[in-house]
Amino acid sequence: MKPEHIRMPTLPPEPYAHEGHECRAVASVLARVGDKWSVFVIMMLGDGPKRFNELKRQIGGISQRMLTLTLRGLERDGLITRTVFPTIPPRVDYELTDLGRGLWKPVQALGEWVFQHRQQIEDARQKFDARNDPE
Amino acid sequence: MKPEHIRMPTLPPEPYAHEGHECRAVASVLARVGDKWSVFVIMMLGDGPKRFNELKRQIGGISQRMLTLTLRGLERDGLITRTVFPTIPPRVDYELTDLGRGLWKPVQALGEWVFQHRQQIEDARQKFDARNDPE
Repeated sequence: MKPEHIRMPTLPPEPYAHEGHECRAVASVLARVGDKWSVFVIMMLGDGPKRFNELKRQIGGISQRMLTLTLRGLERDGLITRTVFPTIPPRVDYELTDLGRGLWKPVQALGEWVFQHRQQIEDARQKFDARNDPE
Repeated sequence: MKPEHIRMPTLPPEPYAHEGHECRAVASVLARVGDKWSVFVIMMLGDGPKRFNELKRQIGGISQRMLTLTLRGLERDGLITRTVFPTIPPRVDYELTDLGRGLWKPVQALGEWVFQHRQQIEDARQKFDARNDPE
């Protein structure tokens, strides 16, 4: 076993550099988790099922098409379910699966950290911009 | 106080729908955190400072330009430092700041979850694809 596997147990040290199936699988899941819209949708579904338009309104700034693609990707990953109710017009609910609720916890912890440190990051940005553009 | 603020304390319920400064600040930080390359870089820096080429090799699949942009964004956010050593050729190290080390924890927890559940997600994808493309 290479020492890298001890230092970094949660991800192979070179996720793409090997061609192993496992590394590619982890990278492809992380790509979803590292997608801002997926993060928003998972957070928003934390308090229960929501309809498409409800998600669209709450997330804001996301196009119809991008939300559709994001939801389909999350459904494919087994993180959310899509339930169609045969009303007129049909009602479609999206809800976290057990797997999705498991992912919600670390995603929420991340959101919590961001919320608590937003001012520090904002301050850092202003200092950086002042340093790099003295005009 | 609207009930949404109780249900979802960590993020405003409609991050972009209000025009408040705070909501935009949180959304702009989350957009960084929800960027796959930033997530990779933060994870990779968890075990100490690294040079540009070391990061590039370990992350793989990232272009020179994209890594440069990602590192600059993280530096601007106050999450990493960039240190130039006046050797020939100059050596440039990137390292997490205290703020960045704070963010590393929830990012790592997320990576850990992904690593542990990669097989379940892979299985879900295969089932989804079989269901939606019976050929």
